[in-house]
Amino acid sequence: MVPRHALQLLHRAARSPTPFPLSPSLNRIRISHSINVRCISSTHSGRSGGSNPQMSFPCLDALEARTLSLQSRALASSTSSTNLSSSSGPEPTYTTGAHQAFNSIDPLLLDYGGVLPKFTIAYETWGTLNPERSNAILLHTGLSASSHAHSNEANPKPGWWERFIGPRKPIDTDRFFVICTNVLGGCYGSTGPSSIDPSDGLPYATRFPILTLQDMVRGQFRLLDYLGITKLYASVGSSMGGMLSLCSGVLYPSRVGRIVSISGCARSHPYSIAMRHTQRQVLMADPAWNRGFYYSPPQVPPHTGMKLAREIATITYRSGPEWEQRFGRQRADESKAPALCPDFLIETYLDHAGEKWCLEYDANSLLYVSKAMDLFDLGAKNAADREAIRAKNQWKIDSTLPEDASSTIEGQDECTLTLPPKPYKEQPRASSTVAQAASPSGPPEDLVRGLSALANHPTLILGVASDILFPAWQQREIAESLRAGGNRVVTHVELGEDKSLFGHDTFLLDLVNVGCAVERFLE
Amino acid sequence: MVPRHALQLLHRAARSPTPFPLSPSLNRIRISHSINVRCISSTHSGRSGGSNPQMSFPCLDALEARTLSLQSRALASSTSSTNLSSSSGPEPTYTTGAHQAFNSIDPLLLDYGGVLPKFTIAYETWGTLNPERSNAILLHTGLSASSHAHSNEANPKPGWWERFIGPRKPIDTDRFFVICTNVLGGCYGSTGPSSIDPSDGLPYATRFPILTLQDMVRGQFRLLDYLGITKLYASVGSSMGGMLSLCSGVLYPSRVGRIVSISGCARSHPYSIAMRHTQRQVLMADPAWNRGFYYSPPQVPPHTGMKLAREIATITYRSGPEWEQRFGRQRADESKAPALCPDFLIETYLDHAGEKWCLEYDANSLLYVSKAMDLFDLGAKNAADREAIRAKNQWKIDSTLPEDASSTIEGQDECTLTLPPKPYKEQPRASSTVAQAASPSGPPEDLVRGLSALANHPTLILGVASDILFPAWQQREIAESLRAGGNRVVTHVELGEDKSLFGHDTFLLDLVNVGCAVERFLE
Repeated sequence: MVPRHALQLLHRAARSPTPFPLSPSLNRIRISHSINVRCISSTHSGRSGGSNPQMSFPCLDALEARTLSLQSRALASSTSSTNLSSSSGPEPTYTTGAHQAFNSIDPLLLDYGGVLPKFTIAYETWGTLNPERSNAILLHTGLSASSHAHSNEANPKPGWWERFIGPRKPIDTDRFFVICTNVLGGCYGSTGPSSIDPSDGLPYATRFPILTLQDMVRGQFRLLDYLGITKLYASVGSSMGGMLSLCSGVLYPSRVGRIVSISGCARSHPYSIAMRHTQRQVLMADPAWNRGFYYSPPQVPPHTGMKLAREIATITYRSGPEWEQRFGRQRADESKAPALCPDFLIETYLDHAGEKWCLEYDANSLLYVSKAMDLFDLGAKNAADREAIRAKNQWKIDSTLPEDASSTIEGQDECTLTLPPKPYKEQPRASSTVAQAASPSGPPEDLVRGLSALANHPTLILGVASDILFPAWQQREIAESLRAGGNRVVTHVELGEDKSLFGHDTFLLDLVNVGCAVERFLE
Repeated sequence: MVPRHALQLLHRAARSPTPFPLSPSLNRIRISHSINVRCISSTHSGRSGGSNPQMSFPCLDALEARTLSLQSRALASSTSSTNLSSSSGPEPTYTTGAHQAFNSIDPLLLDYGGVLPKFTIAYETWGTLNPERSNAILLHTGLSASSHAHSNEANPKPGWWERFIGPRKPIDTDRFFVICTNVLGGCYGSTGPSSIDPSDGLPYATRFPILTLQDMVRGQFRLLDYLGITKLYASVGSSMGGMLSLCSGVLYPSRVGRIVSISGCARSHPYSIAMRHTQRQVLMADPAWNRGFYYSPPQVPPHTGMKLAREIATITYRSGPEWEQRFGRQRADESKAPALCPDFLIETYLDHAGEKWCLEYDANSLLYVSKAMDLFDLGAKNAADREAIRAKNQWKIDSTLPEDASSTIEGQDECTLTLPPKPYKEQPRASSTVAQAASPSGPPEDLVRGLSALANHPTLILGVASDILFPAWQQREIAESLRAGGNRVVTHVELGEDKSLFGHDTFLLDLVNVGCAVERFLE
C-alpha cells in the first residue's frame, strides 16, 4: 500500500514536469523572441561548484525553442479557428503544392477490415494521354514523397524525380502520360490519419485503420478507373514504390503492361522491420505525439520524435563507405571541445536531415505507412490470408450485417493489440519453418507462387550492392522468384560498389545507371 | 509581438503537459496497483464514434506504468534518504555484485582537460599472480559491461565471458592471472557520472568531464601500479574492449607483452558514430533525462530513452541474415490484428532487449562512454593533438596556476559547445583530405605512424564478416597498418559468413572460432 502523502506527491509530480524542462536561457528566449541559443548560464539550476564545468546542450535548447515557437503560433491562431487547413495554425499544411484530387464517395474496404467511407487520392500528371489510352505510366512513390515527382505549371518546384522525367528523359513525357499519386495513408492530399473522419468531423488520428500496400494500390486503380485507363503501359517505382509497383502487377495483372521495381522487395525482411520499428517507437515515445492526437492547438506536432525518427532513417538511406569518403572523422568545428550534442560532421549531417523534415510530414502518416511496409509480403500464403479476411469483412461495405458479424470481424477488436504474454527469449537456433531466405536450392516456393500472375510480364528489377535497407539479395530474390515461375522476360540489374556507394538513395541520385536502365527497358 | 493572453496561455501550456499523458486505463492501474495493462477503453479521451475503432497502445501503457511504479518507489524512499546507494531508491544500484575497488587519491587529468580529483576503479581477478608478476592478463570490456567477466566466490553469477575464462579455457586461469575492470565513466563501481563529485558532495551528472578511451586506460594502469604489475603478459578485449586493448599497447608499449583485439577498430568510423549518435539523441530527448540530473527522488531515471537507445544498439549487434533465419516474417501472435506497438517477432525481440536493459545501466554513463568511443582515433595526429592539450592542462593537477591559464585551457569553455553556425549542406563530393579509408595503395599513413609503437608486439586481430557495427574492413585496417609499420607478428583472423552470422555479438557467442583463436595466440 502506497502511503497517502506519497500518492499526493506522485500526483503532483505527474502534473508538474514540462515535456522539456525550461532552462534559464530559454526564459531569455521567451523575452527576447530570439532562438539564437548559444550558452547555458553556469548557474544553470544551481549546479555550479563542481570539479568541472556543467556541459551545455545547444541541441536541446533548439528543440525547446521550437516547441515554444510552435506553441506561440498555435495560441495565436487558436482563438479564431481550429481548422487544420489554416496556414496560421501550428500544424503545417503538408501539401507540397497544387495537385489534382480524385474524390471517391464509394467506400474502400481495407485488407485488415478497416473502412474508409470515402477517400481522396491526390495526383499529378505529365505528358498527354493518347487517344487509345495506352501510354499511361503509373509512378509510385517512396514512403514520404508527395505526388510531385516533377515540376509543372501548377507547381513549378522541382519534384522528387525531376531529372528522371521529361521530354527525352528516362521517363519520356513526349511519349508517355505519367501519373503519380500520394499514397493513401500519406499527408500530401490523399486520405490519411490527418484527414477528417466523415463520421464525426474530427481528424482520424490513430482511429485511422491499419492499411497495406495492397490497399494503397486499390485506391490508385480507382483513380485509373476514373481516368478511363484500362491498362497501364507500365508501373514504375523505387523503394516503397518498387514494392507498390510489383504489387500493382500482382493485384491487377491484366491492367499492367510492364513493371519496373527499383531497390524494392517482394516482402519486408526483419532488418528493415527493425529499423522502422525503432523509428516508430522513438516517435511514439515523444510526449507530444499524445497517442496520435496532436492536431488541435495548443498542441504541437511531435517535432522531436519526428526529427529523431528521420535521423535513424537517414542512416539506412546511405552507406558506410560513402560516409567514410565524405565525412571521415571530421568534426564540425575542430577548435571546439567535444560535446554530447552533434559534434562530428556525420552528426550534424544527421541532425540537419532531421531538422529539415520534422515538420514536413505528418507523424501519424509515418507510423501507418511505415507499418504498411512491414506488413508487405507478396507470398501466396499472405495473399490467401488477406483474401479470407476481406471476404469476412465484405459486409461492411455491402451495408448488410451478417448474423454473426460481431464474432467474425477479424482484426478489429480494439483490445486485442497486446504484447505477447511472455517476453521474447533468446532461442538456440531457428527452426527450419522460420527460415525463409532464398536458399541455394532456389527462391522460396511461397513467393514463386505469389508472383505467378506475373509469369509473362516484362519486368525490370534493379538493386544496389551498397543498399543496407533493401539489400541486393532482396532484388535477386524477386528476379529469381519470377524466373522460377516461368517468366523469361526479367531484366535484373545489380549496381556494384564500383557503380554506386549511395546505398538506398541511389535511385534518387544516379541518373546514369538507374536512368539508362529504366529508359532502355521502357523502349 | 505576442498578445498578452497568448503568453498567459503559453505559460499555462508549458506547465501543464505531463511527460506521458495519463490514460484512463492508467488511472485504473494506480488504484489496483497492477501493471497488467491490456486495454484502452473505447471512450479513451472521448474519441469514440469514428469510422473505425481507436488503436490501443499497450507498449506505451507499459512505459507509463513503469514511470508510475518508479515514482512511487522513489517517493516511498525519499522521505528518509537521498542516498544513491540505497537499494530502496528509484535509482537502481548498478553494480552487478561484489567486486574489489582501487581508490586513487591522486587526481587524474583527462585528455580534454577535465580532472577527476580522485577516482575508483572497480575490478575483479581470477587465477593467481605468479611470484615474477609476469602472468597478468588485462581484460577490457565492451561499452556497458561490468568487471564481472566470470563467476567467482564473491559473486557466483555467470560473467559476460563466462565460457571463455577458467581452467583450461581459452583464457586459462591455471596459467594466467586475469584482471577485468569496469571502465572509468561506467556505473559498475568505477568513477563515472553517477558518482559523487568530491568538491560538493553531489553526483557529477553532466558536470562529469568528457573522457577518452585513453583516459580509461590510464586509470587501468594506475590499478596495475597498485597491484605491482610492471608488465602485462597480454592485453585482451572485444568491441570497445578491442579498442582499449590496442590503446593499452600504444600508450604503454613497454608494459604490454602481447595484444588481442577482437571486433574492434583503430578509429571510429562515421557509420558507427551515426548509430551511437542516434542512441544518444534519443536518450537525451527523454524528458526524464533532465539534462543528466535525474538522481534525486522523486525523479526517476530515463528508462524510456534508455530502452529506445538499447533497441537501436541491438540492431547493430547482430546481422540481417541471422534475423532472417531466426525470425523471418513471423509475427508474435498471428491471430492478432497488426499493431503499431511491437507486433513482428523481431520487434518483440528488440523490445525485450530494451526492457531488460533500461534500468541496468546508468544513462549518463552510456552518453559519456559512447562519446568516448566516437572520439577514438589511434592516428598520430590525434595523439599529438591530445598530448598538446594535456600539456596545457597539466597545471590543473600540479596545483600551480600558470600566468595565462584562463586563456590556455582548451576544451573547457562551457559556452563553446555550439552547433555549427550553418546547418550541414549536401556537398557534391568529398575532398581528398576527408577520405581516410584504407585505399588500394595501403593503410592510412596517419594510422601506420600512430601504431608504430607496436612494431614488435605479437598481435591477434580478429574480425567478423557479418559485423555491421565494426565491419571487417576495420580489423583489416588495423592488421595492415601494423604490418606496414614493420610488425611481422600480426595474426589476422576474419570469420566469414559461413563461420558466423552473429555479427558484432560473435565474440560473446562463438567459443569455437573466437575462443580457439585466442587460446592458440596466448600459448
